[in-house]
Amino acid sequence: MFKFKIQKQSKKTLSRAGVIETAHGNFKTPVFMPCATAGAVKGISSEELKNIGFEIILSNTYHLFLRPGEKEIQKLGGLNRFMNWDRPMLTDSGGYQVFSLGKNFRDYAEEIKEAILVNVKNDGVWFKSHIDGSKHFFSPEKVIEIQKDLSSDIVMVLDECTEYPATLKRAKDSMEITHTWAKRSIDYWRRFGNKKQAIFGIVQGSVYPKLRRESVKYISSLGFDGLAVGGVSVGEGKANMKKIIRNVGPILPKDKPHYLMGIGEPEDIIFATKYGFDMFDCVLPTRLGRHGTCWVTKNWSKFNKIDLRKSQFSQDKKTIMESCGCPSCKAGYSKAYINHLFKNNEMLGLRLASLHNLWILAELIRRIRRSI
Amino acid sequence: MFKFKIQKQSKKTLSRAGVIETAHGNFKTPVFMPCATAGAVKGISSEELKNIGFEIILSNTYHLFLRPGEKEIQKLGGLNRFMNWDRPMLTDSGGYQVFSLGKNFRDYAEEIKEAILVNVKNDGVWFKSHIDGSKHFFSPEKVIEIQKDLSSDIVMVLDECTEYPATLKRAKDSMEITHTWAKRSIDYWRRFGNKKQAIFGIVQGSVYPKLRRESVKYISSLGFDGLAVGGVSVGEGKANMKKIIRNVGPILPKDKPHYLMGIGEPEDIIFATKYGFDMFDCVLPTRLGRHGTCWVTKNWSKFNKIDLRKSQFSQDKKTIMESCGCPSCKAGYSKAYINHLFKNNEMLGLRLASLHNLWILAELIRRIRRSI
Repeated sequence: MFKFKIQKQSKKTLSRAGVIETAHGNFKTPVFMPCATAGAVKGISSEELKNIGFEIILSNTYHLFLRPGEKEIQKLGGLNRFMNWDRPMLTDSGGYQVFSLGKNFRDYAEEIKEAILVNVKNDGVWFKSHIDGSKHFFSPEKVIEIQKDLSSDIVMVLDECTEYPATLKRAKDSMEITHTWAKRSIDYWRRFGNKKQAIFGIVQGSVYPKLRRESVKYISSLGFDGLAVGGVSVGEGKANMKKIIRNVGPILPKDKPHYLMGIGEPEDIIFATKYGFDMFDCVLPTRLGRHGTCWVTKNWSKFNKIDLRKSQFSQDKKTIMESCGCPSCKAGYSKAYINHLFKNNEMLGLRLASLHNLWILAELIRRIRRSI
Repeated sequence: MFKFKIQKQSKKTLSRAGVIETAHGNFKTPVFMPCATAGAVKGISSEELKNIGFEIILSNTYHLFLRPGEKEIQKLGGLNRFMNWDRPMLTDSGGYQVFSLGKNFRDYAEEIKEAILVNVKNDGVWFKSHIDGSKHFFSPEKVIEIQKDLSSDIVMVLDECTEYPATLKRAKDSMEITHTWAKRSIDYWRRFGNKKQAIFGIVQGSVYPKLRRESVKYISSLGFDGLAVGGVSVGEGKANMKKIIRNVGPILPKDKPHYLMGIGEPEDIIFATKYGFDMFDCVLPTRLGRHGTCWVTKNWSKFNKIDLRKSQFSQDKKTIMESCGCPSCKAGYSKAYINHLFKNNEMLGLRLASLHNLWILAELIRRIRRSI
């Protein structure tokens, strides 16, 4: 069950305002999806997310597969029920974590790289759990089955998130793995997919316009419910990121939702919506918040980051941002107090900062939508 | 500004229901005060405390004196304004922390003991900061000045919290220090006290009924606004604690509020209210919650503790407690989900458990009050 309706198309840019219908209700686009990595947006409850105005969240297949396991979640009534979230849910495929966590876990890195080199071009990818080192295998079919058990509304296909930098040759080889997997995914979905769920394909191609065009063309041809663009925000830098957005946005099929994966800086979201992107996700609001950093803005087009742990805020009676409607600022918590909380490792501090950042993105998206 | 009015007196026990008027508004008694140790109830916002129904909270002079400092808080408009808490506030004297933290910080223990031995019978007590090891001095007058700067509604006098076990001789000597300090406190308060604040004296005397009676008599004679009983919950065991409550409760002056310090087990609160105690504080609700332990009850007279981290809960679809009105149970979070959150070190788990425990005590107090 999935419908995408464009309600308004900007005349000046590719921006569009729409609505997506899923088994767990509708959500408006453009949309930002907070990340409930291990089944929870760090420190924030489902009620708080709803109060801020989020209509859809993202959960990570990789984390939930490892713990508690998709079968456990299925027994508990699916991921929505488990998390007490009754609105739409997107699950990623786990591909990004398999590849990126592999790079971070130095102890396993060599072995994982080897495993990837050996296996990645065949059926799928072997990886080691970051929790206990146990070995697991993800294939395009397997991650679909996991996401069926999780009962999310939007299922993502397994892709290879091409690392940066990558040579043209390497980027092309990597993209072809993603394409092979995409084809297998849609074939499998047509036979065994759950009609209540939608499935999105993922475009790769690194920073090479030719590859990106080829990838858009191929992935679009497979008939997915939506198109995601991956392999951005992997260290390619702002200029390259913008280039990809400018190249890819305009050639994505107009009648499908466009999801730019892993992007969460306010300016980047503003930029990408002008090129027709509808969906965004990122761990930034809570990751920054946990470290005391908050976005502030005066005009909603330029954003600054302030680090509330700095002593310059220890006597600042003002809230994080003037005329801000976030739960922290609206209640009246001062920067001095939040500074004090961080100095004392009081978790209320990171919660207030995270709630502020989440609200900033929710409000930004509302403003973008109104302006279309 | 302080008024205590008894609205209802039980005919069967010494229980009474009352209301206390302070500069920051009224609160009903019996009352439980959550502890905002370093200016925050661990992980819980002021709005959440209000929603659960708390009318007064306690903050720790020791912690706030060390960081950010009472002068900083004064510059920021006082502790209520700093914490964004507009209801009544009690501050302890710091005495308990000076003595109990001294015992815990092994590196400093010898030196602190020595310092206490040298200084405690004279002007006050020297102690070392648990944050940076810096040396500080608390006297009865000094802790009053600090609490004046904090602008709390109820100021506690400096006492020596007698350790357990203590010989009769040691307990008597210790009590006499507390008495000397109490006299100095009230004398100082009469000259320099803030009329907007109230001041409570503290009864000591360890487990010795004779000393406790002597202490009640002396402290009551000094004209404090309220009477606190300290030196309980210091390792004396339930039987001794109940003995102290039974001995002391009935002889406290009826027209003053009776505050039993550091008590927070539901059964102990029920027991103590029967002996006329009106006020309670404890870190237990959040301390237990942080470690995954929750109170549950069927009849509100017997309470069990369950450890949600245990694997027996990993498939339990039910909320922490049946027909519970806490923010976690009311929203519908299952024990299986909270178990998962603890396994993943997701702070949402300890927040849900803490909110549940806080609500249990708030609800228990409401039920006790209604039953009087």
